[in-house]
Amino acid sequence: MAMTLAQLAHQLGVELRGDGSLTVFGVAPLNEARAGEISFLANPKYRRWLADTRASAVVLAEAEAGNAATAVLVSDNPYATYARAVRLLYPEPGPRHGVHPAAVIAPGACIDPSAWVDAGCVIETDACIEAGAQLGPGCIIGAGVSIGEGSRLIARVTVIAAAQIGRRSVLHPGVVIGSDGFGMASVDHHWEKVPQIGTVRIGDDVEIGANTTVDRGALGATVIESGVKIDNQVQVAHNVFIGAHSAIAGCVGISGSTRIGRHCTLAGGVGVVGHLEIADHVHITGMSMVTHSISRAGSYSAGTPLMENRQWRRNAVRIKQLDSLVRRLNEIEKDK
Amino acid sequence: MAMTLAQLAHQLGVELRGDGSLTVFGVAPLNEARAGEISFLANPKYRRWLADTRASAVVLAEAEAGNAATAVLVSDNPYATYARAVRLLYPEPGPRHGVHPAAVIAPGACIDPSAWVDAGCVIETDACIEAGAQLGPGCIIGAGVSIGEGSRLIARVTVIAAAQIGRRSVLHPGVVIGSDGFGMASVDHHWEKVPQIGTVRIGDDVEIGANTTVDRGALGATVIESGVKIDNQVQVAHNVFIGAHSAIAGCVGISGSTRIGRHCTLAGGVGVVGHLEIADHVHITGMSMVTHSISRAGSYSAGTPLMENRQWRRNAVRIKQLDSLVRRLNEIEKDK
Amino acid sequence: MAMTLAQLAHQLGVELRGDGSLTVFGVAPLNEARAGEISFLANPKYRRWLADTRASAVVLAEAEAGNAATAVLVSDNPYATYARAVRLLYPEPGPRHGVHPAAVIAPGACIDPSAWVDAGCVIETDACIEAGAQLGPGCIIGAGVSIGEGSRLIARVTVIAAAQIGRRSVLHPGVVIGSDGFGMASVDHHWEKVPQIGTVRIGDDVEIGANTTVDRGALGATVIESGVKIDNQVQVAHNVFIGAHSAIAGCVGISGSTRIGRHCTLAGGVGVVGHLEIADHVHITGMSMVTHSISRAGSYSAGTPLMENRQWRRNAVRIKQLDSLVRRLNEIEKDK
Repeated sequence: MAMTLAQLAHQLGVELRGDGSLTVFGVAPLNEARAGEISFLANPKYRRWLADTRASAVVLAEAEAGNAATAVLVSDNPYATYARAVRLLYPEPGPRHGVHPAAVIAPGACIDPSAWVDAGCVIETDACIEAGAQLGPGCIIGAGVSIGEGSRLIARVTVIAAAQIGRRSVLHPGVVIGSDGFGMASVDHHWEKVPQIGTVRIGDDVEIGANTTVDRGALGATVIESGVKIDNQVQVAHNVFIGAHSAIAGCVGISGSTRIGRHCTLAGGVGVVGHLEIADHVHITGMSMVTHSISRAGSYSAGTPLMENRQWRRNAVRIKQLDSLVRRLNEIEKDK
Repeated sequence: MAMTLAQLAHQLGVELRGDGSLTVFGVAPLNEARAGEISFLANPKYRRWLADTRASAVVLAEAEAGNAATAVLVSDNPYATYARAVRLLYPEPGPRHGVHPAAVIAPGACIDPSAWVDAGCVIETDACIEAGAQLGPGCIIGAGVSIGEGSRLIARVTVIAAAQIGRRSVLHPGVVIGSDGFGMASVDHHWEKVPQIGTVRIGDDVEIGANTTVDRGALGATVIESGVKIDNQVQVAHNVFIGAHSAIAGCVGISGSTRIGRHCTLAGGVGVVGHLEIADHVHITGMSMVTHSISRAGSYSAGTPLMENRQWRRNAVRIKQLDSLVRRLNEIEKDK
Repeated sequence: MAMTLAQLAHQLGVELRGDGSLTVFGVAPLNEARAGEISFLANPKYRRWLADTRASAVVLAEAEAGNAATAVLVSDNPYATYARAVRLLYPEPGPRHGVHPAAVIAPGACIDPSAWVDAGCVIETDACIEAGAQLGPGCIIGAGVSIGEGSRLIARVTVIAAAQIGRRSVLHPGVVIGSDGFGMASVDHHWEKVPQIGTVRIGDDVEIGANTTVDRGALGATVIESGVKIDNQVQVAHNVFIGAHSAIAGCVGISGSTRIGRHCTLAGGVGVVGHLEIADHVHITGMSMVTHSISRAGSYSAGTPLMENRQWRRNAVRIKQLDSLVRRLNEIEKDK
């Protein structure tokens, strides 16, 4: 989609400084952009590319505008403005509707005429695919599941256990919603399965990354509120609650019955043990394990710094001696 | 399924204290239960809800019985009794049998007439689906694979490499059994693949969670003994052995040729390096890395505690100085 | 496939010491091999089995040859020689060609007549399956994707976003290539999706393990160079670059825009934060988090050693006091 810089600035609602008659048709990183493409500067790490970029215009903050040799689109939030520019310059194909002949639809499934169900999908009885929902190839929708208006299941998504997916949510390939949680009772030295009879409720505008799994509640529901964004390969156990607008990065694991507040962020590889309560606006840095409830907003961390292996070997062994070190130090201080 | 409390207590084999003529039809958490539902108290965290619950009866231990205002079902193992109550009140639908017309069955595959193969399944030659096995939609069963009596593959499970699955085992969506292990030899600065020609043997009453992967042996078999329970997103490498009745929580990774004993538990996010031997009754706490064999039963841990990020920054940098700290302390003690 | 030891040694190009007329037909571990099978010794851990093996011959290094009671095949690189012996003794079935009637091929997809597309595959428009490529059951190939000559998608692989896969690469079940990256801008206390419009370029002779995910670039491409080997359940975020011949073990997560050099190894469970540059020949030990760029080849580590839980509890709490310990020590030294 081509438009002039003036048109683009107008539609984005930002100030243009430069030649509004230039035509632009795409976006690219600062160091790869060519004439006709726009770029953006949001991460100061890439400022070094600003002077030499061949982009037709750059989206940036007021404070950076003086450093650019190109036309600029000045924004309070350059990254968000860039995101909107991408949507304008690369409009998504319109939704499809109908059912591919190679999909399998059980009697009793209801599929809105404006929804699309692609080849290889299997839709079971009493499932409901709402208006405009888009199911890519190979999705499996179990009995009683509901996929809300305009939600998109990209490909090979499995939703079972009568889960309810809200509106405009996006589920990426390999996602599993509604699998059994890990519930078992110890009886006479073996494990007896605790039947998992709950469900999953996912809000509006939720995004769930490739191969992420969300278990059904043991009883009641696992809940992901509206606006939550979850990356790839995340594990959400039974009866977890994730508050609105929280963001969960890749490879995170959240154990059963834990409640994550609103506007939280969990960085990559974080683990959260079960039955905890995490307050709103809590941020956990990468690969930390959260072992207790957190009642105060803030940033929390665990873990050890990366070292050269030789240095690490010398230091790591000392961790086993820490308690005795403290006792020796106490002894010395007493003797002073 | 509705029954009286007296009937329920009788079928569970536990003592009822209260009005046996009450009718119950479901289960719910203590704080959500309504009349006609039973609940349970197994985790003392939830004791605070006991006094006010509106459940018709609560399954609990003798020691808690005095605190309840409702009828009680007294059990030595409330969680296991609750699990059985769920099975009674929510009986599973009877097994289906036959082959969905949208399944693809290769010549030479054998499917017991009492087994069920759902839409979108692909069953390859010489695969064997035993009596009563239930294959949900989209499962792929490779050549020579055997699925034992009464086992259930919920949906979109892949089993290849002539793997053998025992009886009454449950495999959740996205599970992959029999993928190639990570075997390669370094030759002239590149990697040469080591062909993986082994298989996988899984016992009876095993449960394997969503998107978990179990590689085939390089040679011989990867073995998961009977009664093992594995959660979601676990990686089991080639030639791993997991002893009977061990439980592996979500996001665990077990490297090649490691042998885990019986009745072990690995908590979420644990990593185990390759070629180790872990004794029976070993318990590893969450996100620990196991780098050496463990010959003694017990509980083992690694990792650092969660702190506020500011506090963590101050302390973590000191870990790099630990060895020199010890040397300084030694020096001071020598001088005393 | 049976052959004499003399034939095998000749084809492997290694020295045989022993009776070349013996017939061999298979391979097995040292402790399980029977007459007619060959074995190998590459890991010194298994040397104890050398004296008693019943293998017909053992592949090993010159230094070990004296310890064997059997015929030996002497190699500078026993593991690589073993790998080649497996390929000779277990030749892969020849490639199939054609399209299974239960595959769904969109108009405009191009499938080379020598390629194979199995049941349940869905190939979308403008996808290109090159000569000899082998697609197992249930693969989904999106619009504009190209699968190079001789590459193999074992089963249920999803490739979208116009990704380009090179020649002779192998993708295992559950792999997702081309899913959206985790890109979003914070706007007024909610997250706004940043459209992901890039692609994925994967080189020749790459292997990608079961349930691994590789996101498309936000802009431009996520790149995996030739000869890279990736294990199961690895997460490769948008715009990551992995240099040729690097090896990434299971459960690793690599965050967006990070550049991994050539000939690197990341052990199991490693996490790498985004926007870093890792030099060639860098090796990261298991479960370490990499938080800064690494400009020098070498081995790097983080993490704490495994301890008995009781010992760990005493020591771990002291990590929170490390900074104050150092200050106390400074004080004492000052007073000396």
